[in-house]
Amino acid sequence: MPVYKLFTEEEYQLFDAKVSPRMAGIATFMRLPHIHQPAELQRRGAQVAIVGIPFDDATTYRSGARFGPRAVREMSVMVRPYNAVQDVIPFETLGIADFGDVNVVPGYIEETYQRIEEAIAALLAIDVFPVVIGGDHSLSLPVLRAQARKYGKLGMIHFDAHTDMYDTYFGKRYTHGTPFLRAVEEGLLDPEGVIQIGLRGPLYSREDYDFPRKNGVKMIRAEEVFAWGVERVIAEIQERAQGRKCYVSLDIDSLDPAFAPGTGTPEVFGLTNRELISFVRSLRGLDIVGFDLVEISPPYDTANITALLGANLVFEFLCTLPDNPNVKREG
Amino acid sequence: MPVYKLFTEEEYQLFDAKVSPRMAGIATFMRLPHIHQPAELQRRGAQVAIVGIPFDDATTYRSGARFGPRAVREMSVMVRPYNAVQDVIPFETLGIADFGDVNVVPGYIEETYQRIEEAIAALLAIDVFPVVIGGDHSLSLPVLRAQARKYGKLGMIHFDAHTDMYDTYFGKRYTHGTPFLRAVEEGLLDPEGVIQIGLRGPLYSREDYDFPRKNGVKMIRAEEVFAWGVERVIAEIQERAQGRKCYVSLDIDSLDPAFAPGTGTPEVFGLTNRELISFVRSLRGLDIVGFDLVEISPPYDTANITALLGANLVFEFLCTLPDNPNVKREG
Amino acid sequence: MPVYKLFTEEEYQLFDAKVSPRMAGIATFMRLPHIHQPAELQRRGAQVAIVGIPFDDATTYRSGARFGPRAVREMSVMVRPYNAVQDVIPFETLGIADFGDVNVVPGYIEETYQRIEEAIAALLAIDVFPVVIGGDHSLSLPVLRAQARKYGKLGMIHFDAHTDMYDTYFGKRYTHGTPFLRAVEEGLLDPEGVIQIGLRGPLYSREDYDFPRKNGVKMIRAEEVFAWGVERVIAEIQERAQGRKCYVSLDIDSLDPAFAPGTGTPEVFGLTNRELISFVRSLRGLDIVGFDLVEISPPYDTANITALLGANLVFEFLCTLPDNPNVKREG
Amino acid sequence: MPVYKLFTEEEYQLFDAKVSPRMAGIATFMRLPHIHQPAELQRRGAQVAIVGIPFDDATTYRSGARFGPRAVREMSVMVRPYNAVQDVIPFETLGIADFGDVNVVPGYIEETYQRIEEAIAALLAIDVFPVVIGGDHSLSLPVLRAQARKYGKLGMIHFDAHTDMYDTYFGKRYTHGTPFLRAVEEGLLDPEGVIQIGLRGPLYSREDYDFPRKNGVKMIRAEEVFAWGVERVIAEIQERAQGRKCYVSLDIDSLDPAFAPGTGTPEVFGLTNRELISFVRSLRGLDIVGFDLVEISPPYDTANITALLGANLVFEFLCTLPDNPNVKREG
Amino acid sequence: MPVYKLFTEEEYQLFDAKVSPRMAGIATFMRLPHIHQPAELQRRGAQVAIVGIPFDDATTYRSGARFGPRAVREMSVMVRPYNAVQDVIPFETLGIADFGDVNVVPGYIEETYQRIEEAIAALLAIDVFPVVIGGDHSLSLPVLRAQARKYGKLGMIHFDAHTDMYDTYFGKRYTHGTPFLRAVEEGLLDPEGVIQIGLRGPLYSREDYDFPRKNGVKMIRAEEVFAWGVERVIAEIQERAQGRKCYVSLDIDSLDPAFAPGTGTPEVFGLTNRELISFVRSLRGLDIVGFDLVEISPPYDTANITALLGANLVFEFLCTLPDNPNVKREG
Amino acid sequence: MPVYKLFTEEEYQLFDAKVSPRMAGIATFMRLPHIHQPAELQRRGAQVAIVGIPFDDATTYRSGARFGPRAVREMSVMVRPYNAVQDVIPFETLGIADFGDVNVVPGYIEETYQRIEEAIAALLAIDVFPVVIGGDHSLSLPVLRAQARKYGKLGMIHFDAHTDMYDTYFGKRYTHGTPFLRAVEEGLLDPEGVIQIGLRGPLYSREDYDFPRKNGVKMIRAEEVFAWGVERVIAEIQERAQGRKCYVSLDIDSLDPAFAPGTGTPEVFGLTNRELISFVRSLRGLDIVGFDLVEISPPYDTANITALLGANLVFEFLCTLPDNPNVKREG
Repeated sequence: MPVYKLFTEEEYQLFDAKVSPRMAGIATFMRLPHIHQPAELQRRGAQVAIVGIPFDDATTYRSGARFGPRAVREMSVMVRPYNAVQDVIPFETLGIADFGDVNVVPGYIEETYQRIEEAIAALLAIDVFPVVIGGDHSLSLPVLRAQARKYGKLGMIHFDAHTDMYDTYFGKRYTHGTPFLRAVEEGLLDPEGVIQIGLRGPLYSREDYDFPRKNGVKMIRAEEVFAWGVERVIAEIQERAQGRKCYVSLDIDSLDPAFAPGTGTPEVFGLTNRELISFVRSLRGLDIVGFDLVEISPPYDTANITALLGANLVFEFLCTLPDNPNVKREG
Repeated sequence: MPVYKLFTEEEYQLFDAKVSPRMAGIATFMRLPHIHQPAELQRRGAQVAIVGIPFDDATTYRSGARFGPRAVREMSVMVRPYNAVQDVIPFETLGIADFGDVNVVPGYIEETYQRIEEAIAALLAIDVFPVVIGGDHSLSLPVLRAQARKYGKLGMIHFDAHTDMYDTYFGKRYTHGTPFLRAVEEGLLDPEGVIQIGLRGPLYSREDYDFPRKNGVKMIRAEEVFAWGVERVIAEIQERAQGRKCYVSLDIDSLDPAFAPGTGTPEVFGLTNRELISFVRSLRGLDIVGFDLVEISPPYDTANITALLGANLVFEFLCTLPDNPNVKREG
Repeated sequence: MPVYKLFTEEEYQLFDAKVSPRMAGIATFMRLPHIHQPAELQRRGAQVAIVGIPFDDATTYRSGARFGPRAVREMSVMVRPYNAVQDVIPFETLGIADFGDVNVVPGYIEETYQRIEEAIAALLAIDVFPVVIGGDHSLSLPVLRAQARKYGKLGMIHFDAHTDMYDTYFGKRYTHGTPFLRAVEEGLLDPEGVIQIGLRGPLYSREDYDFPRKNGVKMIRAEEVFAWGVERVIAEIQERAQGRKCYVSLDIDSLDPAFAPGTGTPEVFGLTNRELISFVRSLRGLDIVGFDLVEISPPYDTANITALLGANLVFEFLCTLPDNPNVKREG
Repeated sequence: MPVYKLFTEEEYQLFDAKVSPRMAGIATFMRLPHIHQPAELQRRGAQVAIVGIPFDDATTYRSGARFGPRAVREMSVMVRPYNAVQDVIPFETLGIADFGDVNVVPGYIEETYQRIEEAIAALLAIDVFPVVIGGDHSLSLPVLRAQARKYGKLGMIHFDAHTDMYDTYFGKRYTHGTPFLRAVEEGLLDPEGVIQIGLRGPLYSREDYDFPRKNGVKMIRAEEVFAWGVERVIAEIQERAQGRKCYVSLDIDSLDPAFAPGTGTPEVFGLTNRELISFVRSLRGLDIVGFDLVEISPPYDTANITALLGANLVFEFLCTLPDNPNVKREG
Repeated sequence: MPVYKLFTEEEYQLFDAKVSPRMAGIATFMRLPHIHQPAELQRRGAQVAIVGIPFDDATTYRSGARFGPRAVREMSVMVRPYNAVQDVIPFETLGIADFGDVNVVPGYIEETYQRIEEAIAALLAIDVFPVVIGGDHSLSLPVLRAQARKYGKLGMIHFDAHTDMYDTYFGKRYTHGTPFLRAVEEGLLDPEGVIQIGLRGPLYSREDYDFPRKNGVKMIRAEEVFAWGVERVIAEIQERAQGRKCYVSLDIDSLDPAFAPGTGTPEVFGLTNRELISFVRSLRGLDIVGFDLVEISPPYDTANITALLGANLVFEFLCTLPDNPNVKREG
Repeated sequence: MPVYKLFTEEEYQLFDAKVSPRMAGIATFMRLPHIHQPAELQRRGAQVAIVGIPFDDATTYRSGARFGPRAVREMSVMVRPYNAVQDVIPFETLGIADFGDVNVVPGYIEETYQRIEEAIAALLAIDVFPVVIGGDHSLSLPVLRAQARKYGKLGMIHFDAHTDMYDTYFGKRYTHGTPFLRAVEEGLLDPEGVIQIGLRGPLYSREDYDFPRKNGVKMIRAEEVFAWGVERVIAEIQERAQGRKCYVSLDIDSLDPAFAPGTGTPEVFGLTNRELISFVRSLRGLDIVGFDLVEISPPYDTANITALLGANLVFEFLCTLPDNPNVKREG
């Protein structure tokens, strides 16, 4: 008999890997119930939804992140429900569903932005907390548009090798290197509430960091992560997040290619998964309104280790949600 | 507005690749509606169900076919609904659902056989035609048990490099090399109604073909397929199938490794996909009661071409079903 | 001492694989001289240019064709200069250079179209014959715009699994499934001068072939290629091309996945390379104004066999050019 | 002239990589002499035998470990004989042979258990120390049965992401998740002498660790390994092993997927090879009776780095054996 | 009880895949007895020996064939002993052993040639028929030196995309493109007794075929194979071989890359495995003195299909040996 | 308008990844200008040249490093020009060109050595600083011959898992395991000025380290790197380099296989990229005369992460050159 919220008896049977082997069944995220209609999410009492965004046309080099949601779902069947470190089974106290994917428009960035913003807004309108799996990093912009419409100007905890605060590429304003400069311009993000962790790698010019620097973004380079250690970085995150609503954006290229080969613009000298997982666990208790995991590119993912890591990162984040003030409580 | 049977409006939107891109959504077979409960299949008027059997523990060499159903589903999103050669959109006239998978018991052949037999029997009991995706070839035995219980002794159209009519391996009676000798022993198959196409490769001994030969099985070696041509082979199939209820069992290793590298016991000198697809198309109009596609092993499937071919073979078979006398007609 | 046109002594040394091993040097196409400026092409007497177009954002499913030009160049180092079947060394009589690539705009189809059209027009303006390597099939449209501006309405010899004459995908008019309907609409192609070879696979609907059919396109399905044989298909090509200027567009997915796994929308039941190479050889002597090879997607190209085949197809086409009436003769 | 024990002159020539290149010859473990008959092992004075167990049917998710022994042997040709850190050439003082593999029964766990137990018992009976390469983790149970029959109840030093002390999966008692609960039940292991290192990852339920916890197993989670450092973990191992005969069981999934991608149930946040190799080196001088290395799954092993690491781990363990009290000394 | 020659009871058990699963044991060719000393081969009555030559330093482009012998052995475990087409179990009537490999000298062609010639001569001296697995094609020269020393000037049946009758590469006389010109020069081969099948692909110059042409070599291009059909090619082979002692040299690149991706200089438009296997089967009854299979390069061999095909080609050739007049009969 | 030295306007456009996407254009190193003639290098004011040496025939095990230069160039397109850690854009102050490759002689070590020595000497003669990308490690010997001819006996900073100071392999003096013993013998290197970092792994014998030890080479084993930390190792490097002209040789197998799988003789327990990149950055200000990066083997490089790392290592070294006293200053 299902002990978890939202599950029917049958759904629970299909979820439980000691009853239904992990290679069996349809690969939703962790084999959670698949509920695509907002009305149905509401009717069944969902509080959190996994949302895939299979779009990568804003990618400037190696594409493939369009298959990120499907690959993360496939590897997520290996994740078990009880998080012993956080001591949480998120499904016990929260109704968590797999929404499926947003219907993006391949080749058309701005139309896709509209679809994303609408889909996220529809979930926020019924107080379902969206946990997004991309897709390239450009998608954070329309997600932030929907979030800021509900919550106002946000802070952001941003794990990445790159600032993604460039102005243009090839003269174009919407690419996977520009979403957060746009978000600041549009008033969605308060740059003084933004912290970026894992920055590294060669840059285009000496001016690449000018925008975040001048606008008060807190930038922590990979070299600093290693020199300072995990605890100090966590303290920096918590200081920035203090007293603000924050969005979390996790670019898998924050990790070193040894840990995350399956991405479009890998950068050497990156974080280990020990470091990154520790950071994600530290988000518990913060005032977080949304989350995305982006830039997993399955065609380059040897032995699927990047997608497996991605599935674990999403799960670690889900385990912070029982304590999250922005997750709807039951009446 | 959905023009196809069984689909809700929303399910149809998710199915239509010109609306919802193929990388989007949960990967059921061809993104068909997922209906796992027999009662629900019945309620919604399903006549055909795709059934995955993710089991490969009866494999004697390279395993991995346990991931066959998931891989075929994933590549099936590339298949479009209208078959121009057969001039059929099977979903127009038939309610076809993805049942999901049978809950097999990894490591335990006989328990798994029970689960398979029960699941297939449950579908047959409500007159849903099962289209099975394996899994290793051992699973045909329990499927045949359920089929023969409903339909009596059957003929079989069997595409394979191997007869799978060995008596034992390592002294054991249930392996992926023995299902059809067992099926004859158990009275499920009438060997005089069995035709095997694509046989080839070195054998264990001069006696390997004795059982099928002595029992009247029609064996067509790959050498004969090439010498005779497609038309004559089709005539042989039709002659054998004449006046009988037949089961179709399609082992992907009937194909040459160039066309189907992703399988556990590949044999060189095999069929081309042109030949095999032509054979499957020729099944239209025969009195077929069930179908399985087995032995696709994703860990060995370079560029997923085997899974893609598998998805197409299933689709070609689905396109024969509007004319199939064993598919339940509506009242 | 260089015996070939356009080569300096040094360039010839780097080209000759019995002097400079094929793993050495910078990978231009066949290690031809790299000349990117139209003025310089003109000054050195180039008559033909290899032009890469690394763009794939109009792809509706698996991307990666943006790396097609680089991969084809890399494998082209294996191609030797004398074509014994055609009895031609094209470099003896023609100045052939590698132009490099068009500067596309990732994520922006229409801007990219402008860049492509301008680049091709600039080559045509100086009477350099462009041999294009893509990239996804959407790029044929701007190439045709430039060609038709010079030559007027064209016929087309088109090898493909798909007609690419759909009207829209996701409501958008520019995708890799729509270039040739657009080209007919825009008056660039005379549909009665178009022949399509290798069509196959399931379709979206019964109406998919309506546009080409009603407009007089000659469609030869893969089933017909196999039934008719190579000679009859060549006769059909020649009949269509008779008395017209034609463009050649070669989508690598015309081939079966066994021969060309590295593509975005592979279709089983495809051409063999024997068949396709024979067709390309048969183009010699026709009144052809341009050529493209598209849809090679290196991330899916196991053992690089697709890129190798692509390099050979381009070379076979180059070998037809000494007889081509649209290649500028020297004064 | 061979300086090593057990080698004939010819065998030594084939072993010495500065005489016979490493790509040459038949791939036994490190190209050691292959001696399959116990009587022959005894006659030639072997004291240690490498024993492959190519069985993986107790695997609950990704299989392939059946090819572990062959892959480890293949990569072991890269290992040279002198261990500079341990300052040992094990072949100088010990007769070490490659026994080949146990004849397992694919698909049949319990029959395979009998075969394994018999084979190991036969080696123990002639005082040959078995060094086992699997295969999935279920095989430790029959090895322990043979070991405990000879040595009585044992302690165990166990490197793993998982406790493998579950009671059942799918209602079955013998799987690769259950061997050590069975071993405790059967009185083969004294749980108070067991130490498990590297545990991590999500669990099925809050109760997953109850059995080891209640029975006094010492569990060291990966988080603790990182927090404590290598030295403290070694001290814990030595404390547990003090005054006991111990078995060593090394599941390759104790390592992080970046270091060991080739395994069936990888878990992120795992050990580095620096850490694990240090632990194995620390086993020198302990009272160890047997060893297994399990769960290397070659189909998922990119660039063979997991099998290479496995070969080194076995070699590091072999280098502890000259000091091992349970290795037979010569008269 | 072993029914096959040369096998001990134990060796037979390890050979029989219905007793010892194919993933078990040390991977000699087909798990045949490994006998490396000529004296021992003689003592045990071996008549045929599989000889690996893991050398590829004469390769002009992609290397890796040094791992050919190991890879073919590994995949050969899938080959069963009874050839139903040829109706032969070669092990019944012939003593066939795996000799292991020649100790080549990496990086040094001429020293390696000496080692190869000596090793083959040593086998020929005791009337053991050598069946060679390479390695790159340069190795045929020293094998021919040993063969011609015993048998005098030979004919040759040569399957290849290339003539391998170039004079020099980079000014060097010994490469994998030159062995047969050297062999003619050295009087080892009678060019009028040489037939080459499968030639194709672009050439360096118009003169590439001059040497074979002028010297009377029979050259059959791939285009001719396809036009003529298998039967006529076999007739040509038999005509050439009539009344001569012939050597057989089989370069895997005679096959199309779809069938044999794992090779260093693949050429498109190649033979199918149906064609090549038919040719090998046709060698039965000819007066053949030796055989090599070369140029399988495992690093490029997706899903190991090339090595599997290679193992089958060797086996098909072994099946011709019971009728071969140069295989020593027992007294 | 180009702000960098040596670039024409057009070359700069092709170099700038915000103008010309990284998948576009011919893959020279970082898309730098390609200048192959020494005279032209001189005329255009080049001070530094990237030199590929695509040779691997001195490899004793897995080959493939012959494709190292091409693969590093291909991945180098991902590297941006401004190094924020070193605060340098090397192209601003130095003229850096891609020379292309040395014309090596496949299969012939000593002839290749002559070609390499001549090519490097030609660059040194015009005061162009060579930055070499291999190829196997044997190539350092002829590079050192040219360097020592200009600069006299040198010190060396050598990152490697192996000393490469063996005397012979297979009785041969020139292999990729012997270059530095030869270099000491020939008086090119002063062993007391040599430091080797990252040594580890099993050895052939107790005597393997005798030569370096007795000759005063400073050897730092991987175990010491980990125990001492990065700073102390840097101090050791600087102490050794003090007051000497040094050569830098960087074997990618100094890294752990998790970070650099694409190499021929990987050794576990290796450096992380954090460590190695830190070491390379520390070379700034030292009196360095030349550099090589060797042993990247693309056929084994999963997801190209090794080549990407190699490109970054070369770039990090280029960033030390503005301060290098051996780089020619402008008049």
